[in-house]
Amino acid sequence: MGSARSLASRVGLLVFSWLALGAAGVRADPLPSWNEGPARQAIVAFVEAVTKQGGPDFVAPAERIAVFDNDGTLWSEQPMYVQLAFILDRVKALAPQHPEWREREPFASALRGDLAAVAATGEHGLLELLMATHAGNTSEEFARMVEGWLASARHPTLGRPYTECAYQPMLELLAYLRASGFKTFIVSGGGVEFMRPFTERVYGVPPEQVIGSSIQTRYEIRDGRPVIVRLPAVDFVDDKAGKPVGIHKFIGRRPLAAFGNSDGDFEMLEWTTSGPGPRLGLLLHHDDGAREVAYDRKSSFGRLGRGLDEAPTRGWQLVSMKNDWKLVFPPP
Amino acid sequence: MGSARSLASRVGLLVFSWLALGAAGVRADPLPSWNEGPARQAIVAFVEAVTKQGGPDFVAPAERIAVFDNDGTLWSEQPMYVQLAFILDRVKALAPQHPEWREREPFASALRGDLAAVAATGEHGLLELLMATHAGNTSEEFARMVEGWLASARHPTLGRPYTECAYQPMLELLAYLRASGFKTFIVSGGGVEFMRPFTERVYGVPPEQVIGSSIQTRYEIRDGRPVIVRLPAVDFVDDKAGKPVGIHKFIGRRPLAAFGNSDGDFEMLEWTTSGPGPRLGLLLHHDDGAREVAYDRKSSFGRLGRGLDEAPTRGWQLVSMKNDWKLVFPPP
Repeated sequence: MGSARSLASRVGLLVFSWLALGAAGVRADPLPSWNEGPARQAIVAFVEAVTKQGGPDFVAPAERIAVFDNDGTLWSEQPMYVQLAFILDRVKALAPQHPEWREREPFASALRGDLAAVAATGEHGLLELLMATHAGNTSEEFARMVEGWLASARHPTLGRPYTECAYQPMLELLAYLRASGFKTFIVSGGGVEFMRPFTERVYGVPPEQVIGSSIQTRYEIRDGRPVIVRLPAVDFVDDKAGKPVGIHKFIGRRPLAAFGNSDGDFEMLEWTTSGPGPRLGLLLHHDDGAREVAYDRKSSFGRLGRGLDEAPTRGWQLVSMKNDWKLVFPPP
Repeated sequence: MGSARSLASRVGLLVFSWLALGAAGVRADPLPSWNEGPARQAIVAFVEAVTKQGGPDFVAPAERIAVFDNDGTLWSEQPMYVQLAFILDRVKALAPQHPEWREREPFASALRGDLAAVAATGEHGLLELLMATHAGNTSEEFARMVEGWLASARHPTLGRPYTECAYQPMLELLAYLRASGFKTFIVSGGGVEFMRPFTERVYGVPPEQVIGSSIQTRYEIRDGRPVIVRLPAVDFVDDKAGKPVGIHKFIGRRPLAAFGNSDGDFEMLEWTTSGPGPRLGLLLHHDDGAREVAYDRKSSFGRLGRGLDEAPTRGWQLVSMKNDWKLVFPPP
């Protein structure tokens, strides 16, 4: 007995040391690229409140849902949406088979490389480009096309693969939330089938947690093999008031936290932060012309006006890229 | 050093014992309500193959997706779909405000309690009943309505709450798959907003892993509060060829395993089992008139014909409720 007790106490000590080390590991700064300031403080205070067992704001892990816009929130949307760069490359490749595109918008602007004119056609114009360049493919063919393009394309100013243009502080935030029991979802105006091939690798977000705009699909048998065929018709536009609708459709419960950067994210933040209990709404303000691009009210991509005006009264955190982030992109 | 080594080896022994106990715990029969037989063997062989580290059929946990039909697969769909019982109760409650329903199908049959006539109007007829009885409500009001009804309604022959009419062997199968690293999804022709209020409690499946038929919704501000309003228009019918479309839309990757019981599940099994590597397709055959209801080719609810005919050549397992299950419902 004595020997067993002694062993038990020594094992207890070892286990204690191991737990202490583990706890210290967890307590290492989860947001090393975030400067001290109100945005960082709001994030940490929120996470500590909802995860504190027995605390007044504790939320069960199953209810810990966080939603993130993608373009301009998780990765760069300048000088244009990444998906638009993909589409323009496809339009150019397919143009010889479509002489009529030279006179028809938004194709004519796309072929001229006139981004402002393309952007002026809005989300629906972008989706029309997407449909025209990809309808008739199967979902698997399309995923391979996206993967191939991502492997070879480079960001025009950063000169690196787009999948290395994610914001380092946001990657840390995603990981911090997941380590705190959150399920992280992407809720983007971008095409869902464009995002799913890379979100798991780049953001740690699996395909089933990606919500986006979509075109209709049809199940059919081709050459004896079942396939999902992509049709030239809009199914769902996941932008503005479509974002809470998409959240409701795909997740089925209201998130605790929402992260965006443009007025397209306004209703998502509004829906998220109007629920009971602790909520976190965060808008990234692109005010860093030195390290990225400074833009807000007048930008073709990621316009932010109403969000800037109303964030203070709605209790949303404005994150200043310039002041709140130690670095923007991961080191090469 | 000697003392430290001795301690280390004793700790090692303890840890080994603990692991061995843990492993033994995992090895306790995960499917106690399943009789020995080909269905059970196929399930266990499949799970062991895809989870065996280093084995030829190993599949990474992120790819382990299993999809389950709900009505007739996870819970009873006889003498009628549970959601239909809910709808009939709502139609009766609202009928005084809708005198025109007495002459219009499918309302007239619903008010007469003529189930066969209601069923003959098909999935679309059922959805029309759903929309007519619930449009205009908010998603939160509707969820409370479902919860209230489930709390008081009783299954007409079993005499217990519907949420206690889940099949015990399927509850074990869901838990076994999750313990083996699978993410379990429901893919049902039933209304997604009817299922989400109970699936987590009854099946351990959270709302974001429930795919179903849906009506359109709209985000709006009512009395200064944002709400999701349910509109009287079909959004998506998650049945037959709609099931693989729904799987693609909501999950974005092909499942490894699919479980159904009717020809409405045929394409879901076809899509699932035509992928590369190990796949499992399973159809529950309701052949147990003593403990439940014996039905297949001629049933209004959950008709199974093509699946019975083609299961052998497609390599799908037919589960005989009568022979493969030790018990059907959990003990009261």
